[in-house]
Amino acid sequence: MPRAERRSAPAVGIVGATGMVGQELLALLERRRFPVGSLAAFSSGSFRKSVRFRGRACAAPAPTTAALRRCSLIFFVSADEVSRRLAPALADSGAWVIDDSSAFRLDPKVPLVIPEVNASALRPDRRLVAGPNCTMTGLAVAGFALHEAAEVREVRLASYQAVSGAGRAALLEFFDQAARQRAELRLRGGKAPVPRARKASALPRAIAGNVVPQVGSFDDAGESSEERKVAAELRKIWSAPGLRVSVTAVRVPVVRGHSLAAWLTLRRRLAPAAAAKLLANAPGLRFFRDGYPTPLETAGSDPVYAGRLRPGAAAGELALWIVSDNLLKGAALNSVQIAEELLRRRWLS
Amino acid sequence: MPRAERRSAPAVGIVGATGMVGQELLALLERRRFPVGSLAAFSSGSFRKSVRFRGRACAAPAPTTAALRRCSLIFFVSADEVSRRLAPALADSGAWVIDDSSAFRLDPKVPLVIPEVNASALRPDRRLVAGPNCTMTGLAVAGFALHEAAEVREVRLASYQAVSGAGRAALLEFFDQAARQRAELRLRGGKAPVPRARKASALPRAIAGNVVPQVGSFDDAGESSEERKVAAELRKIWSAPGLRVSVTAVRVPVVRGHSLAAWLTLRRRLAPAAAAKLLANAPGLRFFRDGYPTPLETAGSDPVYAGRLRPGAAAGELALWIVSDNLLKGAALNSVQIAEELLRRRWLS
Repeated sequence: MPRAERRSAPAVGIVGATGMVGQELLALLERRRFPVGSLAAFSSGSFRKSVRFRGRACAAPAPTTAALRRCSLIFFVSADEVSRRLAPALADSGAWVIDDSSAFRLDPKVPLVIPEVNASALRPDRRLVAGPNCTMTGLAVAGFALHEAAEVREVRLASYQAVSGAGRAALLEFFDQAARQRAELRLRGGKAPVPRARKASALPRAIAGNVVPQVGSFDDAGESSEERKVAAELRKIWSAPGLRVSVTAVRVPVVRGHSLAAWLTLRRRLAPAAAAKLLANAPGLRFFRDGYPTPLETAGSDPVYAGRLRPGAAAGELALWIVSDNLLKGAALNSVQIAEELLRRRWLS
Repeated sequence: MPRAERRSAPAVGIVGATGMVGQELLALLERRRFPVGSLAAFSSGSFRKSVRFRGRACAAPAPTTAALRRCSLIFFVSADEVSRRLAPALADSGAWVIDDSSAFRLDPKVPLVIPEVNASALRPDRRLVAGPNCTMTGLAVAGFALHEAAEVREVRLASYQAVSGAGRAALLEFFDQAARQRAELRLRGGKAPVPRARKASALPRAIAGNVVPQVGSFDDAGESSEERKVAAELRKIWSAPGLRVSVTAVRVPVVRGHSLAAWLTLRRRLAPAAAAKLLANAPGLRFFRDGYPTPLETAGSDPVYAGRLRPGAAAGELALWIVSDNLLKGAALNSVQIAEELLRRRWLS
């Protein structure tokens, strides 16, 4: 990178740098050669107290407003309450704040942005920008071309969500359960075993060898917080307030990569061949005309993947299988792409 | 059991007794005190050559028509081609044949029966009776009360299917992959790992740490054989030829227990409270008004379980989560229940 450009590179802050998404974010800034003038890393209660960036160790103390005020671009990849406490004042004082938490996503004054879908929602005077829920990101990217062409009016979605989406404690709990379950994974006199359902604390139920239809907490109507987020955020990102969405959010024993079985009901008829062409050209999407993606095979890579496009149950309905890495496009990558878009517009320097 | 009853107990044959479903079937005949006058066990190409029944070892040679002709009740829990080759002639010669394979399920002359749903399809002169696909069984049982009350006209179904449903080789492949993956299940410098996608042969892709949206083989329209079976068999069992069904069948790293995220569109409006009451009273079903079943917690038990009943995306639509043990209600148990129904009617002695 030319020296002149580097001199004007932004002072970058990362709140939650020691977390799983924070670690992915640091790696992405390196890999994508994002211009980082200086880096201020902050933990948020994690046991790790430093991170590595461009070959150097970098202390990661608890975040303070005073330290963050020296940054012109701040990524929040931490808990909702940390964003709620610190982000608005920093944005008010002129920093660009890209928040991966769910604290402000539905705030009408806060753009909720997936650059491939609605970069147009960015405005120079709205400096607090939210990135979306990791589960709906894949659908928002994969389905947007269909929505633009034929208007999606109903969505049904069953998710297969990776454990890393629930955070580090959940992932460690999964690893521990998987290790303990291992001895039970053998035939018993020719019969399939019945592995033991172990106690869980980070997740609502044991996840090794299981699937759990609870992500977050349930409301009185029986919807989980994850299911509500997906519906509300999809309506906002697609600017489709009348969209009807029903989600069954399910945790599965996968390390990383959220998968979705989706049914999209379109207002205008779209032949599967025309839909396939739209998907093949959709930005940020890798579409399988034959075959299909799986989370294990695509983990650690940037795109959203889709396949198994076919007619659904009713006229004008399409079924689609979607996979994306929840820590990358579902979180860290989308945040970096928002920052890259700000740079492209020269709103950030 | 009184001696008189035992004397008239049927001569029972089991083709595929050494397989995983066969082993469950033997255990169920014991546990449910099914009257077995004599037992003739047959393998079908499995490496095991004997089984145990009521404390005794019992040879399990390859099946022959001559040996099977001595049985008055024959369970087929083996491959389609074995049923196709042997079952029709045995039924023609007067034996009751309960076939768990998919060979004859859609044959209009063959009753396809889940006793809680359509025992009425049994007829004394139709001695070849088929049991249904393990994936649709849970839905057929859980949704039937709703169908009777308000007529289901559309079904969307995303499945979370256990590896044991693909047979013993698939299960052993899963166990092997899980053992090899174990060393990779740890954080890498704070980052979530990207486990390796290992080679697969019994299943289309590696299944440990993965979800795979392929069960069976795809047709030209992009539907898998499992998805076609679920749709066609549900229409037959519910006597609902016009039912529109869209399925995404997905294999998950669970040992036993198929789970389903289902959306049912009803012709007549049914309030969720009324639907809950129907489900609470449905035969063969254990309904969770609060909470939900998971496959790990319910594996090895007989009922179909359902929970998370709530409104779906459109008017008159309900969403439901369903779990059942694919080796029990999805296979061996249903076959035994059919035989018990024949006994109850005194069609079999």
